[in-house]
Amino acid sequence: MSAKLILFPVPIGDGDPDLSIPAYNRELLNTCRTFIVEDTRTARRNLKRMGYTGLIDDVTFHELNEHTRETEITHYLDPIARDENVGLMSEAGLPCIADPGNLITAMAHRQGIEILPLVGPGSIFLALMASGFNGQNFAFNGYPPVDQNKFTAQLKILETKIYRDSQTQIFIEAPYRNDKLLAFMAKRLMPTTRICVACDLTLPTQFIRTRMARLWLNDPPELNRRPTIFLLYK
Amino acid sequence: MSAKLILFPVPIGDGDPDLSIPAYNRELLNTCRTFIVEDTRTARRNLKRMGYTGLIDDVTFHELNEHTRETEITHYLDPIARDENVGLMSEAGLPCIADPGNLITAMAHRQGIEILPLVGPGSIFLALMASGFNGQNFAFNGYPPVDQNKFTAQLKILETKIYRDSQTQIFIEAPYRNDKLLAFMAKRLMPTTRICVACDLTLPTQFIRTRMARLWLNDPPELNRRPTIFLLYK
Repeated sequence: MSAKLILFPVPIGDGDPDLSIPAYNRELLNTCRTFIVEDTRTARRNLKRMGYTGLIDDVTFHELNEHTRETEITHYLDPIARDENVGLMSEAGLPCIADPGNLITAMAHRQGIEILPLVGPGSIFLALMASGFNGQNFAFNGYPPVDQNKFTAQLKILETKIYRDSQTQIFIEAPYRNDKLLAFMAKRLMPTTRICVACDLTLPTQFIRTRMARLWLNDPPELNRRPTIFLLYK
Repeated sequence: MSAKLILFPVPIGDGDPDLSIPAYNRELLNTCRTFIVEDTRTARRNLKRMGYTGLIDDVTFHELNEHTRETEITHYLDPIARDENVGLMSEAGLPCIADPGNLITAMAHRQGIEILPLVGPGSIFLALMASGFNGQNFAFNGYPPVDQNKFTAQLKILETKIYRDSQTQIFIEAPYRNDKLLAFMAKRLMPTTRICVACDLTLPTQFIRTRMARLWLNDPPELNRRPTIFLLYK
């Protein structure tokens, strides 16, 4: 078996790894001495809680985040040429989804390196499964634009896709802006459009609820600093 | 703890459940006596391989597939009112994604029933993770239209979204048509557009490769009857 780039999911929040990570992932975790991560400090903690048995001080961490320039990452996959696996992890959930990890996987494809994506908690997909919305046609739109006028215009376009194409629309937001985002969408969307709020997925405090847009203005949940996915459909 | 609708992922193909299903799912599987499934025969087999310890002959199966009318499913969630969990499974992978399971989850939301989505193998998301394509903006378009002219027109629209919006485009196809679909897209897409073929995910025969469209015409892989996800990006 030749060396690979292995994509390791990480539990969401303080979630118990046994609830959301297959046992098999741990075996592969222990074959890696080099990890590409968003932040070294949290990556050390995540390795420990996921059952890494090697010496964490012997692990090489390479950072990939919004401050990383593309020229810095060119050597990140070098261990694979020496027949050593390299792991890729994000801060939470599935790597390369809702984060810039694809800079690494794209480089791996260019170099003919085999990529092994592992199963784990993906908040976007858990939210979509539970939303009651169309799972046969959907789009993930990332973070909403900060400019309110731009976001209002985007919501109009997305409502066209919802009603004309039956396409579920999915968003994520910086957790401290969740409450604001929900109130804004509840007011601006058509009253018949439904919003699903999926919060703290895989955690004991998990909250998943689908309601007509306007109804979210009554008794809104407290979403501040809780990881949340927002989904829109008719 | 009150009764729930629990969404159970199923291994892809003949995949080993230990590789792709967290141990926790098995505990919850054994709390259910009623399952909503696409096909009863394969559901019995999937329950056994996932470690169901109850008597399969005592299990009630309700079918939900393309032949089911919406009026038939109204009683499917009745056990929950008697404080008994109900499970929902598709034939493979994540329920309610690329299948019509959302008829059930939408009904659960209308009835105020709690939904618990569990982690497991989602071929769309494993493919996206490994593709090297943008995971911050993506759309799943389901099955391509059978009419070739319609599909050519759709590909043109999707290429606009790829180049203008940097949105990854994802398709699935009936497995016996995979080879035809790849050849068709390789010829019709712009030569700079890249296609990722992600086949037999989580299986020992897994194959994931990203190349420029035209290059797929040389030595195409044999995809016939193998579960495959197709992704397009620039």
